[in-house]
Amino acid sequence: MITSSEYRDRLARMRSNVYMDGKLVGRDYERLEGATNIIAKTYDIIHDPEFKQYEDVLTATSHLTGRKINRFNHVHQSAADLLAKQRMTRITCHQVGGCIARCMGIDSVNALSITTFLADQQYGTDYHPRFEAWLRKFQDEDWSACCAQTDVKGNRPWRPAEQLDPDLYVRVVEKRSDGIVVRGAKVHNSYAPVVEWINVIPTRRLMPDEGDWAVAFTIPSDAEGVKQIVSAATADLPEGYGMAGPFGSADSMTIFDNCFVPWENVFLCGETDVGSMLALLFALYHRHSYTGCKPAMTDVIMGATALMAEVNGIEREHHVKEKLAELICTSELCYAAGIAAAVNGHKDFSGTFVPDVMYCNVGRRHAGLNIYHEYDILADIAGGMPSTMPRSGDWVSDETRAYIEKYMARNPKVDVQDVIRAFAWVQGLACSEMAGVSQYAGVHGGGSPRMEQIAILGAYDVEKTKNIAKRLAGIQTGRSYTFDRLGTTPDLQPPG
Amino acid sequence: MITSSEYRDRLARMRSNVYMDGKLVGRDYERLEGATNIIAKTYDIIHDPEFKQYEDVLTATSHLTGRKINRFNHVHQSAADLLAKQRMTRITCHQVGGCIARCMGIDSVNALSITTFLADQQYGTDYHPRFEAWLRKFQDEDWSACCAQTDVKGNRPWRPAEQLDPDLYVRVVEKRSDGIVVRGAKVHNSYAPVVEWINVIPTRRLMPDEGDWAVAFTIPSDAEGVKQIVSAATADLPEGYGMAGPFGSADSMTIFDNCFVPWENVFLCGETDVGSMLALLFALYHRHSYTGCKPAMTDVIMGATALMAEVNGIEREHHVKEKLAELICTSELCYAAGIAAAVNGHKDFSGTFVPDVMYCNVGRRHAGLNIYHEYDILADIAGGMPSTMPRSGDWVSDETRAYIEKYMARNPKVDVQDVIRAFAWVQGLACSEMAGVSQYAGVHGGGSPRMEQIAILGAYDVEKTKNIAKRLAGIQTGRSYTFDRLGTTPDLQPPG
Amino acid sequence: MITSSEYRDRLARMRSNVYMDGKLVGRDYERLEGATNIIAKTYDIIHDPEFKQYEDVLTATSHLTGRKINRFNHVHQSAADLLAKQRMTRITCHQVGGCIARCMGIDSVNALSITTFLADQQYGTDYHPRFEAWLRKFQDEDWSACCAQTDVKGNRPWRPAEQLDPDLYVRVVEKRSDGIVVRGAKVHNSYAPVVEWINVIPTRRLMPDEGDWAVAFTIPSDAEGVKQIVSAATADLPEGYGMAGPFGSADSMTIFDNCFVPWENVFLCGETDVGSMLALLFALYHRHSYTGCKPAMTDVIMGATALMAEVNGIEREHHVKEKLAELICTSELCYAAGIAAAVNGHKDFSGTFVPDVMYCNVGRRHAGLNIYHEYDILADIAGGMPSTMPRSGDWVSDETRAYIEKYMARNPKVDVQDVIRAFAWVQGLACSEMAGVSQYAGVHGGGSPRMEQIAILGAYDVEKTKNIAKRLAGIQTGRSYTFDRLGTTPDLQPPG
Amino acid sequence: MITSSEYRDRLARMRSNVYMDGKLVGRDYERLEGATNIIAKTYDIIHDPEFKQYEDVLTATSHLTGRKINRFNHVHQSAADLLAKQRMTRITCHQVGGCIARCMGIDSVNALSITTFLADQQYGTDYHPRFEAWLRKFQDEDWSACCAQTDVKGNRPWRPAEQLDPDLYVRVVEKRSDGIVVRGAKVHNSYAPVVEWINVIPTRRLMPDEGDWAVAFTIPSDAEGVKQIVSAATADLPEGYGMAGPFGSADSMTIFDNCFVPWENVFLCGETDVGSMLALLFALYHRHSYTGCKPAMTDVIMGATALMAEVNGIEREHHVKEKLAELICTSELCYAAGIAAAVNGHKDFSGTFVPDVMYCNVGRRHAGLNIYHEYDILADIAGGMPSTMPRSGDWVSDETRAYIEKYMARNPKVDVQDVIRAFAWVQGLACSEMAGVSQYAGVHGGGSPRMEQIAILGAYDVEKTKNIAKRLAGIQTGRSYTFDRLGTTPDLQPPG
Repeated sequence: MITSSEYRDRLARMRSNVYMDGKLVGRDYERLEGATNIIAKTYDIIHDPEFKQYEDVLTATSHLTGRKINRFNHVHQSAADLLAKQRMTRITCHQVGGCIARCMGIDSVNALSITTFLADQQYGTDYHPRFEAWLRKFQDEDWSACCAQTDVKGNRPWRPAEQLDPDLYVRVVEKRSDGIVVRGAKVHNSYAPVVEWINVIPTRRLMPDEGDWAVAFTIPSDAEGVKQIVSAATADLPEGYGMAGPFGSADSMTIFDNCFVPWENVFLCGETDVGSMLALLFALYHRHSYTGCKPAMTDVIMGATALMAEVNGIEREHHVKEKLAELICTSELCYAAGIAAAVNGHKDFSGTFVPDVMYCNVGRRHAGLNIYHEYDILADIAGGMPSTMPRSGDWVSDETRAYIEKYMARNPKVDVQDVIRAFAWVQGLACSEMAGVSQYAGVHGGGSPRMEQIAILGAYDVEKTKNIAKRLAGIQTGRSYTFDRLGTTPDLQPPG
Repeated sequence: MITSSEYRDRLARMRSNVYMDGKLVGRDYERLEGATNIIAKTYDIIHDPEFKQYEDVLTATSHLTGRKINRFNHVHQSAADLLAKQRMTRITCHQVGGCIARCMGIDSVNALSITTFLADQQYGTDYHPRFEAWLRKFQDEDWSACCAQTDVKGNRPWRPAEQLDPDLYVRVVEKRSDGIVVRGAKVHNSYAPVVEWINVIPTRRLMPDEGDWAVAFTIPSDAEGVKQIVSAATADLPEGYGMAGPFGSADSMTIFDNCFVPWENVFLCGETDVGSMLALLFALYHRHSYTGCKPAMTDVIMGATALMAEVNGIEREHHVKEKLAELICTSELCYAAGIAAAVNGHKDFSGTFVPDVMYCNVGRRHAGLNIYHEYDILADIAGGMPSTMPRSGDWVSDETRAYIEKYMARNPKVDVQDVIRAFAWVQGLACSEMAGVSQYAGVHGGGSPRMEQIAILGAYDVEKTKNIAKRLAGIQTGRSYTFDRLGTTPDLQPPG
Repeated sequence: MITSSEYRDRLARMRSNVYMDGKLVGRDYERLEGATNIIAKTYDIIHDPEFKQYEDVLTATSHLTGRKINRFNHVHQSAADLLAKQRMTRITCHQVGGCIARCMGIDSVNALSITTFLADQQYGTDYHPRFEAWLRKFQDEDWSACCAQTDVKGNRPWRPAEQLDPDLYVRVVEKRSDGIVVRGAKVHNSYAPVVEWINVIPTRRLMPDEGDWAVAFTIPSDAEGVKQIVSAATADLPEGYGMAGPFGSADSMTIFDNCFVPWENVFLCGETDVGSMLALLFALYHRHSYTGCKPAMTDVIMGATALMAEVNGIEREHHVKEKLAELICTSELCYAAGIAAAVNGHKDFSGTFVPDVMYCNVGRRHAGLNIYHEYDILADIAGGMPSTMPRSGDWVSDETRAYIEKYMARNPKVDVQDVIRAFAWVQGLACSEMAGVSQYAGVHGGGSPRMEQIAILGAYDVEKTKNIAKRLAGIQTGRSYTFDRLGTTPDLQPPG
Repeated sequence: MITSSEYRDRLARMRSNVYMDGKLVGRDYERLEGATNIIAKTYDIIHDPEFKQYEDVLTATSHLTGRKINRFNHVHQSAADLLAKQRMTRITCHQVGGCIARCMGIDSVNALSITTFLADQQYGTDYHPRFEAWLRKFQDEDWSACCAQTDVKGNRPWRPAEQLDPDLYVRVVEKRSDGIVVRGAKVHNSYAPVVEWINVIPTRRLMPDEGDWAVAFTIPSDAEGVKQIVSAATADLPEGYGMAGPFGSADSMTIFDNCFVPWENVFLCGETDVGSMLALLFALYHRHSYTGCKPAMTDVIMGATALMAEVNGIEREHHVKEKLAELICTSELCYAAGIAAAVNGHKDFSGTFVPDVMYCNVGRRHAGLNIYHEYDILADIAGGMPSTMPRSGDWVSDETRAYIEKYMARNPKVDVQDVIRAFAWVQGLACSEMAGVSQYAGVHGGGSPRMEQIAILGAYDVEKTKNIAKRLAGIQTGRSYTFDRLGTTPDLQPPG
């Protein structure tokens, strides 16, 4: 497994295809640093003695090569793997104070491990060996990947072919003997400029006549024809304050401008039913990842709330405790749902382990419904200071520094520089563009509460509960009682 | 394992010590029938061919005798046992449309299996062998038990010894060579008149000088000196309508009027620290049971909501689906917490398996916070009919029957008699004294949301999250990162 | 204005047409007493010296006769009248601990005062003079009335004429020279058996071809052809405990079995557009009444919560205060909306004063969304006692009385008999069939939150806010800024 | 009344005492422009023909001079004045998409008009004539003012004199014949750098021995010894996009470094009881202002939500309508509370009109509890685009502009440039540092929900509701029923 310097070197060697702030920039552009530092952390933590105790969580044994690999590049073989992935996600998110970014790699890889197998069974294609050949290198080279799923979609109520411009969903525009040419754009493509590979998959269920949009492939982040228009947010604090990172977001509108993809990197091309399954499976794995990262985000908000209470000298107030308990419950109900999803998962025909649909979704939905409320709790306990405190330039200016130190003194047990550090960090966390990005990610990342609602209603057998009701009401039903589980899992069986 | 007729015969042989409606009544008093039917169901289901498939869930193998027993009398040996108990609870509650009652037996027995062992280790007593001797018979005879925990408490802010009357907490008033004499009263003593044994345990943490109140024992429900003043609620419908039961509640204010308890049935007498542990452990097991019964209650409400939607012909309405999804999430987050509590439990020194404190409590709290809202959802979809519909006498009266059948016709796919059955059952479920009892049980049974909050804050290491926050804020802490688990379990280790 | 004895005498003289518990009963049937006592209170309070200070609130001056009348029979002439009606409603509800019942009379009378005028203007009919003739007697005789609006509706998605049975909405089956014959049934017809007149109006918007269902009239509660099948709920406590009333509900399924109505009592017959207006206007007035009665209901729950806190000795607990503050806000936001509705109301062409649609609806909706949560708060603070306490027979039985008095002692400042009274009353309020009826009325009475949502979206000009947004976003709109009010009122202008 | 150019000229003439970004800056510093534009709008709108129809709302007649003045500088004489102020606040906030800033001037002036009168009555001082002399000029010159209330407070649980540094609350350090010298700092001092006067008042109730901290005065924003360390947030968009303003925040930590204040500008000096009253009265007036500005903020969020629905082509979706209805209710319940507060207000002995305490607080609290949820609704309907869309530089760059226009096309009825405008504005509104500032202001501005809770519990007579409960429960109380109002107003009477 490589070090973060090797990772940074790789970025440095990439072709310039990132546009920010109106210009073409290199991967070393300052405003990308926050995102780069996050991916770097997933490499550093493997070699960090402080995390030696989590070795089995952070690494795994490849089912292909038997070699030890970063767990972010692993295909889950068991419930234990899913539980370990969930813990790894929570632990690594703690280190960067938010999204760990590399989850999109593991989630898309797991989804592809199933759908390439399934397509081959069903259509006699050879996607699975291609995929495994790429996966072997992906694991051996310790590459990082993101996933480009969300199409720009044009007018929402219309299907891909109904759009005024067919490119509003990424599609195959040409099939050649050596590969395919694709055109379109993916948005919300988080961390695309700071990873090596982009795994591109469909965004929605597809109808039989929508084969041009049923395409999945992997492509280097700097490939010819790929253009990334990137928006980034990072808290910017002086030396000695804030996160060592710093850590931040980078979201790409990724343009595929007649991109060529060689067949060896094409994992789906035209099989619409399998494409629909792929869209759902990535969402499923990603929602399971959210049962790790969202509790971590709540942990960070909870820690921030407890820190604000300490700084303000109100730790013992009844309402502070009440709100901390609320945060604990939000976090742990979501985490518990992830555990239940792993424990109730199943091994697919392809050999990959799949978490339970219903539990992944109830967990993710609960987190999404609560995210703004969590920021509300933090604001409540923090008081107004994070929104109005003097900015960093004034902390260090000779003309104002003494005033700020005199008047920001609070709980006498807390050094005033730590008071400033605490408020400044909470400002970055909760009262900044970065906060907005995290709030939106909390609502929409991996699927909004509405999407989870649809998934839950699709996976749950409400009729079973209605049958219970009818029996209790004395209404004849002729149905016998069953409760193996109310939730169901998608039928992934190959056609025989 | 016995049949329900044998159970009913046993009740019939009991001494009359139950007071209802101003008079001394027998166990066959009509208004006790709803409660008796519930306990009877826990016997019937074992022999019911429809439930053969759940045999491993509904029965267990005694760790004492190796014999097959009703799981309600089992001491958990593993996480699998806890998961099975959770499922059993949900399945059996489905059959009676609410509380299955016998859970208090299993929960108190499990708590006592630990504290008797612990007391013996710590104080050289012989509670554990006494307890196991009783347990052996309890399992072999397939007895049913309840648990009397909540003292009347007098003035809440005062401790037991501070009360104007020391009997406001059950206490030992005399120790004799052959046993002890106890006085006091327990309230909310659900199903006490319809079980054979009452397991009596302390209600709260006890201080070292409160030894008289540190008492635990088991006693026959009709023992000399025991007087039960009972309140019961049952829906009362004509033949052919409503639950075959009928099923209902029975809550006793159980008076111990200088009751004698032989030493063989005394499981704690004076060891206040172990008494405190016992109070907490029963609550813990009981909250884990709630992660089974509360989802069942939500299933029943969900089924009722879906049935009301069907009867009203509005199944496809967007807001109906939205509300069903809400109910699913309430139910399954609580159930997931119970799964996580089992998976993260541990085997105690006594050999008994203990669920995780934090997950039991976040699950129970979530259910308790939502119970009234669930009834709100049902009311919303049902419309006003359950509250204003003509009562049963008029359905069958010659003068009114035709009018009712004419004017209650709704969804033409539903027979009008089934419309009446559906509304009448929902009236009993959600718009009746029984509904009030279930709502209060939903809030307070096994501990109110407030008690869970206290337990959660006690079990959770908020400092760990504050440490995460400080590191991210650049504040020196000197503490290293740890995340084995944020939640902790009580230290049940014997003193060496 | 008459006394309650005169009112009771009138009831006694009525024809028996009430069916309860499977039999035909007189107005003096015991289980109707709770409802009768409520209406009686609206007569008694006028003559009660304790309420002399509220004389201007409880009475009004008839705009027809200039005579002083009970305000429940008044047609509002000004905003001050609406404010007085709101206060009267709150004050009188306080006296009976819930619904004051006679509001349906005033609300239907006010709606009819407008629609009869409007129909005459538009269609040259003479409904308005007929109505005023009846109103004059209604005021002079101090009659009580209810309103029968909700049809049984059959299959919800179908319109009246589409039902398998056209009688599922009340309709005119014959027009004669001396009057009309109607058939059908109205449900949720609260207090119909204990008032003298039933005002019958349409339940929904009507299409032009639905003239048979566009019918409004007033009819004596015991008229030939009227049959009431009644469900009632009352708390039943021994002498010396509980409300002096007792007070309770009575909901009638009112059958119109080919009822003849003389033309003088017919206020609409075929004018579907006016019928639609009438349905909406009654709902509007009734929702304004809810801004008086719902705060009263919250006051009662708040008082009960404070009383429970006192009895339990926990008045000073932080969470008790927090919950009381929540209840205050629920109550007073609804009441404030009623004030705003009056202040922003307008005088219609008919001379009747109409409250603002939007404020009536936001107020009623807020109450309806919170009703279950209010009961939740009360349950939380009360503890389990109201659901499990011994029933009244046992309080007075020689065998159990002493035990109950010994063990129900709580806060030493509160006499134990008052502890029993407090818990017993809260049981009746919050943990009984009566509670269920009140909860359902809280959700559905006068329109469910969903109906208010529809009314609000219909009355509010969201486009104006979108226009504000567009201007701020720099999007050209060509529309000028206006903010007279975002809400609008229905256009009640006569056509010429 | 002056124009905004005159206002800008005045700012330009001020002494430089503002520190931002580590340096001393002029009032024309670019990052102050957003704040300046807001105050400028309060001058422009008076002369804007589009707002001619609101002349009576936006201006008032001075009770001192009889001259027409900007209503922001008026002392309320009647309920009508309060209603007009509430409307003015909502209307002007609509124009700037948020806080209108000048409310702090009017609210502090009204509070001082009462407390200076009261102090003179009680202590024979001459604050009131001094205040009126200043007020006359304030109105004639059409000055703008802010209010500095919140002290830095040091360790929260300690009172002013207990702090390690007595300056942690602003205090009088010297009394001279010509005036006083003050030292300390005020935070959250919004818009201080862009107004001409700062009205300084106490932050909390004061004890009799805390006279040094019982100080109120007005002082020029650029006075000798005043130093403002300012934090500002503004959305920064290219020409042709976004608000014409732009509009933004400016929050000052205002240092009083041994500032001299001449007696003519001192309005309180040592009278602790009146100082406590002043702290409460400003909060009261300010919370009434929030019943105008918070609905405006909700209108803006509602408009943004409706705009996002239009852009995304989902206006007709059921859940969009549901969420708009929620926003309407949040907005209008708060506004209704402000109306009720005005209607139930009273004229104080000083002649100033005072809104009702309870209604101001329930309205403000409701808004504060909902603010984060409103942003949640907007995020839900907007989708992820506001958080990840390319930044403005890329919209206009030749290399990326065409891609962005191709791929951001959505609802074909909306021009793609308007799509960009809409998303960009929502980004600034809801997903930016400015959003964080607004969220914090929504929670804490004018008092957090917790402060309102305290005020409500202080103003409400819960005992009256308990008395209602006791009467209904049959408990003797000896108290008669009263319901003039449950809420009470502070006793502002001079001592006679």
